[in-house]
Amino acid sequence: MNITELTSLTDDTICAISTPQGRGGIAVIRMSGPQALEIVQRRWQGKNLADMTSHTVHLGHLMDSHGEVLDQALLTIYRAPNSFTGEDVVELSCHGSTWIQQQVVQTLIDAGCRHATAGEFTRRAFANGRMDLSQAEAVADVIEAQSRAAHHVAMNQMRGRYSDELKGLRDKLLHFVALIELELDFSEEDVTFAERSEVTTLAHEIHDLISRLADSYRDGNAIRNGMPVAIVGQTNAGKSTLLNALLRDDRALVSNIHGTTRDTIEDTVMMGGTLYRFIDTAGIRQSNDAVERMGIERTWQAIDKANVVLWVVDVTSADTSMAHDILTRCSGKALIAILNKTDLDDDVAARSELNHLLPEGTPVVAISAKSESDIEGLRDLIVKTAALPDVNADAVIVTNARHYQALTRARDAIARAIDGLDSGLSSDLLGQDIRECLHWLGEITGEITTDHILGEIFAHFCVGK
Amino acid sequence: MNITELTSLTDDTICAISTPQGRGGIAVIRMSGPQALEIVQRRWQGKNLADMTSHTVHLGHLMDSHGEVLDQALLTIYRAPNSFTGEDVVELSCHGSTWIQQQVVQTLIDAGCRHATAGEFTRRAFANGRMDLSQAEAVADVIEAQSRAAHHVAMNQMRGRYSDELKGLRDKLLHFVALIELELDFSEEDVTFAERSEVTTLAHEIHDLISRLADSYRDGNAIRNGMPVAIVGQTNAGKSTLLNALLRDDRALVSNIHGTTRDTIEDTVMMGGTLYRFIDTAGIRQSNDAVERMGIERTWQAIDKANVVLWVVDVTSADTSMAHDILTRCSGKALIAILNKTDLDDDVAARSELNHLLPEGTPVVAISAKSESDIEGLRDLIVKTAALPDVNADAVIVTNARHYQALTRARDAIARAIDGLDSGLSSDLLGQDIRECLHWLGEITGEITTDHILGEIFAHFCVGK
Repeated sequence: MNITELTSLTDDTICAISTPQGRGGIAVIRMSGPQALEIVQRRWQGKNLADMTSHTVHLGHLMDSHGEVLDQALLTIYRAPNSFTGEDVVELSCHGSTWIQQQVVQTLIDAGCRHATAGEFTRRAFANGRMDLSQAEAVADVIEAQSRAAHHVAMNQMRGRYSDELKGLRDKLLHFVALIELELDFSEEDVTFAERSEVTTLAHEIHDLISRLADSYRDGNAIRNGMPVAIVGQTNAGKSTLLNALLRDDRALVSNIHGTTRDTIEDTVMMGGTLYRFIDTAGIRQSNDAVERMGIERTWQAIDKANVVLWVVDVTSADTSMAHDILTRCSGKALIAILNKTDLDDDVAARSELNHLLPEGTPVVAISAKSESDIEGLRDLIVKTAALPDVNADAVIVTNARHYQALTRARDAIARAIDGLDSGLSSDLLGQDIRECLHWLGEITGEITTDHILGEIFAHFCVGK
Repeated sequence: MNITELTSLTDDTICAISTPQGRGGIAVIRMSGPQALEIVQRRWQGKNLADMTSHTVHLGHLMDSHGEVLDQALLTIYRAPNSFTGEDVVELSCHGSTWIQQQVVQTLIDAGCRHATAGEFTRRAFANGRMDLSQAEAVADVIEAQSRAAHHVAMNQMRGRYSDELKGLRDKLLHFVALIELELDFSEEDVTFAERSEVTTLAHEIHDLISRLADSYRDGNAIRNGMPVAIVGQTNAGKSTLLNALLRDDRALVSNIHGTTRDTIEDTVMMGGTLYRFIDTAGIRQSNDAVERMGIERTWQAIDKANVVLWVVDVTSADTSMAHDILTRCSGKALIAILNKTDLDDDVAARSELNHLLPEGTPVVAISAKSESDIEGLRDLIVKTAALPDVNADAVIVTNARHYQALTRARDAIARAIDGLDSGLSSDLLGQDIRECLHWLGEITGEITTDHILGEIFAHFCVGK
């Protein structure tokens, strides 16, 4: 399949502001396309750019369409194919007033450029084979990374570690196909059994590799979007106050994620270089009210999605009537039991009550969310409990929902192939499963893709990248 | 006087983010100083930068202090003296995540850089003779310019037109001194009279040039900070409603300037490429209340400062009892009479009332601020009436309050010299006035200046420029 056809590449020249919005010391306007040098020359008072070599910088003046000086600027030339997009690229470093930035873009458009769409520079880099699709997507992730861990994972992906792993998988799958075809060629000669054992080993190997990648998404998603921590407990246990207390010190780093539901509030905060996403939930109690029961249902779902659950118990009531339901649902999760409102009562009774119920080794912390006492210790415990994978290790971690979906489908396909091998399925039917597996992996790297998918992916980019 | 001494230049290497704050496709971190190349090399995985020529760009990886890759980046080298600051300069073009930007600055600081103070790059450019002080100040004005006119004036100043004019003045003053000294040399020989006539002509010429510059500040200030338009009238004439109506359509371009007084509200808006600063004032009426009278006093001051006055009259009352006071104060100002509240009554009575009072040719406009009818026509009339100078003409316009102050002092000094010439003052006393005149002009260009003044000037710059 021809990638160039699919990405609707046009041969025009695009431009956009590439630096962050707003006023600054300098701003960079980027152009890419076959006419980049010719177009900018129409507005450039300085050396003849056609004579200049790649990767050189030139001082001159940018003019508007009336020939008036817009700015003194530095112009950098990157000649195809040695540029980010693989096309001729020109970068104009101007004074960073918003007025100049707008005017420079306007004068370039007047001179023959088109304003770039979101992510169009990166899309061209992909279309011109400068990077595969997973690397292109990592460019956006690198720009959006807010923590060391998220940055590390995105950077690994952008630099091609993930692509290398997928390429290795692809090679194994092609080897698998070769073995199967061998069987097909010699199908008259009863060599099936010996070959099948080698094929089966290979299939399991592929399955394990795909599984490892797919399973890494749980951590990857936590790294990229924030480690989900659910705050649960009975009504009035002080969950919202705890959320506020946990967020307070880092308010500058907090962003609001508006939930789609009225009664689940999410907020992210950076702790120890990792982003945490705290989810405040509706209080759990027996209820006959339909609306309230819907809220409680969402609380259960929040527990399912969380990596860590904070179970908040009010020491003044020490009501653990819902304990069984909560603990059952938390089974297998990292759980921290919190005795709240120690400003009103000591935690002796509640602690003794809990000790009977909690699985052995579950940490129990006494705090007062209201007076913010012992919150710091709780933070440390959350960081310790969350136990993120060591991202400095070079194992590839999947952070992208689209990739995760493709990987689970690839895994299903290879699992079907393994079943087929076990049940003595014919080679051509096995071949179908393997082709499907290859298809899904190809969707990740962009070898197999559609304009629709590309449009979706690059729409989330910023303009100018 | 040695500029280098005055500016407390140190020979260390500085760094800062130069692009606007926030996230974007790319961000630029700038370094300047003798060790720029050496320091960045400690964190650079790529070519040996010592071998690279000026104005070249190199792709490589930036490392943190633990040797981990922070980002793939483009590095541009500018070798002294061919750089913005006149020192060795390195610009790092990184992916524009806020995390990367912070980390890159941090790793450069760890490797031996100091974080730049506000305006320090430009200050170094000035200290190294790359530009004079008026040009350095224009760099900040260029970055802050919000309109074509403000941009044009700042750009002219940055490119040295203003400096050239001041240099011409300086030459004339030195010629003046030479003539005076000639007189001193021949003082025994009765050549005084003939020389004095040439000197007097020259002195008047200098005075006129300085006056023209100083007088241009009224327009220059309007261009840079917004053309001041005072909205005045009796209480309840609908002044605040008019302010809102004038601002409404351009709300996106509006910024709030919080007045120091409770009762004067200012807001700027862009109309026809020029910034206007509308000043809503306290209603004018006879009052015995001390606080109210203070408010009214500020209204009179607002009229004094305004280039255009909008006098709002309520057609339903057509009360023109304060007309005389207002018109007297507006004498010589561009005045527009506004008949407001045409949604409640026609404007026939009020118009006829006004016609007796207004100076001939004063435009009268009937509007309804509340229903926003005929506001567009009023806008056009304001733009027409404000009559900004044609900034596309190349006459230098002074926009800087510091320069204006120095110019008025220089004008006072040359005026004293002219008086001295008329009254036959001795050459050495005349020389004192001329030296003072030279001193004030030297303060503008930075030939004569102090650390204190420089500190004040550059503190208003953004970091990274």
